[in-house]
Amino acid sequence: MLPFARITIIGLGLIGSSLARAIRAEMPTVRVTGHDADPAVRDTARRIDLCDDITDTAGASVTDADLVILCVPVRAMGAAAAELADDLPADAIISDVGSCKADVLAQLVAALPGRTIIPAHPVAGTENSGPEAGFATLFKGRWCIVTPPADADPVAVERVAELWRRVGADVEMMDPAHHDLVLAVTSHLPHLIAYTIVGTASDLENVTQSEVIKYSAGGFRDFTRIAASDPTMWRDVFLANKDAVLEMLQRFSEDLSALQRAIRWNDGDALFNLFTHTRAIRRSIIEQGQDDAKPDFGRAH
Amino acid sequence: MLPFARITIIGLGLIGSSLARAIRAEMPTVRVTGHDADPAVRDTARRIDLCDDITDTAGASVTDADLVILCVPVRAMGAAAAELADDLPADAIISDVGSCKADVLAQLVAALPGRTIIPAHPVAGTENSGPEAGFATLFKGRWCIVTPPADADPVAVERVAELWRRVGADVEMMDPAHHDLVLAVTSHLPHLIAYTIVGTASDLENVTQSEVIKYSAGGFRDFTRIAASDPTMWRDVFLANKDAVLEMLQRFSEDLSALQRAIRWNDGDALFNLFTHTRAIRRSIIEQGQDDAKPDFGRAH
Repeated sequence: MLPFARITIIGLGLIGSSLARAIRAEMPTVRVTGHDADPAVRDTARRIDLCDDITDTAGASVTDADLVILCVPVRAMGAAAAELADDLPADAIISDVGSCKADVLAQLVAALPGRTIIPAHPVAGTENSGPEAGFATLFKGRWCIVTPPADADPVAVERVAELWRRVGADVEMMDPAHHDLVLAVTSHLPHLIAYTIVGTASDLENVTQSEVIKYSAGGFRDFTRIAASDPTMWRDVFLANKDAVLEMLQRFSEDLSALQRAIRWNDGDALFNLFTHTRAIRRSIIEQGQDDAKPDFGRAH
Repeated sequence: MLPFARITIIGLGLIGSSLARAIRAEMPTVRVTGHDADPAVRDTARRIDLCDDITDTAGASVTDADLVILCVPVRAMGAAAAELADDLPADAIISDVGSCKADVLAQLVAALPGRTIIPAHPVAGTENSGPEAGFATLFKGRWCIVTPPADADPVAVERVAELWRRVGADVEMMDPAHHDLVLAVTSHLPHLIAYTIVGTASDLENVTQSEVIKYSAGGFRDFTRIAASDPTMWRDVFLANKDAVLEMLQRFSEDLSALQRAIRWNDGDALFNLFTHTRAIRRSIIEQGQDDAKPDFGRAH
């Protein structure tokens, strides 16, 4: 039995549009309605036939929904929820796909008091943005972390979990605060570091930007991929998950200082030991199917 | 006309073994002799028929060579060169593939006074190591930076450059010191940062290593690839290019502090502006053929 019959997706970027495609591919009888605040995105979504219906207002998109999934930047969640509050059916479940959960849950509870709110976070994506960047298989073999509030209805939680399983994800339950700490290290800190190093490299006076681009295959290009991710989405993530991000950043800076000191004092053994240790992590990630085993991410050679 | 007739490769890891394969694929009449200090590597190289001949001593590998290319860790270059000094024909050219050039040039000049030394650095690689990790097309479409000493024989420089063109690389000439600064930012700093963040992530007390591995698709996994590179090679690079690496690290740390401050003070505009700027760099790298245009490096979805 399908977990939902009429799903509304608010925000038709990479994740929202991938979810629309995945639902239509895996559950063709579900009616998918979409809305995006940007008229140009709505036009594109209509042109590529992304949903069964695209509405011009958020309210019109939810009037008969049994699930509404907000796929907007994390600091826009509260406003997006407030906009559809008056039109939301009493028994509809509200969910989202945001990269931080404690802050989003607080926003949704404030905007929709008394409603059934089951936040979730599919840990998947690419560096591209917009309705045309999405694809139906984005969530296959990836984890989706569902972070229900402590008093959530178990049936509602299971329906949201089942939706993600249907589009190919493995589902894990987690406390929102713990989610935010885990993602601070596995996702937010890496993005922050990547944005920083790409900024540093493009801002030197003794090495030109064209040299940086030309010789990027030495390692730098790997960082440019996630540093090409959506600026609005990521600005919001860092501000909404500030405490956890700053904590992880502090630890990273300490470790970097230790390495800097090892280089300055020619401590080759300290470097060698760390570099041997980090190899094992890569191996585990590949063994668990979370990355391609092919060298160089499988890039064409 | 072929630039060389008898090429010796000392060190049969990823780069040395790729070069042997590429030379045999592109210039089948060239005789390729190989040597590696590790008997197990020599056995493997013989088993997979990597070269026309594999010798048990470095000296025996160079007796009739017109080009000797050292493909060993950068701090082992001087010793490797000294070992073959007595057997090296007078007119043979010595080259190498090391990731830092000023330090290597000094080592080679000291070990082989009066010889024709033309260092080079192909900016290419994968995270894998050893003779079985190499492949003939590794250098295709990549840059090879040739860093001749100021008084180098132009004919010898051109012969080395031509070898790299024959295996598919584009060749650029550069002063060794400038090379070391450019590579510090496009290759050495990225590796140092990647090693650090993977170390940080595996060392937390409130997030388990299994959680880090499980949710690595949020960005972290990108860093694990280059943090899986050869520990000996990279220990040597950081120590041999210490000054340039420490300078770039200092700049990176300053930029990271600025970003940390922007997060702490909720300066969303500063974040947004940087994140918009870094997108353009990715675009240029793809336009210039230095990375795959496909989303997510072309990983299978």
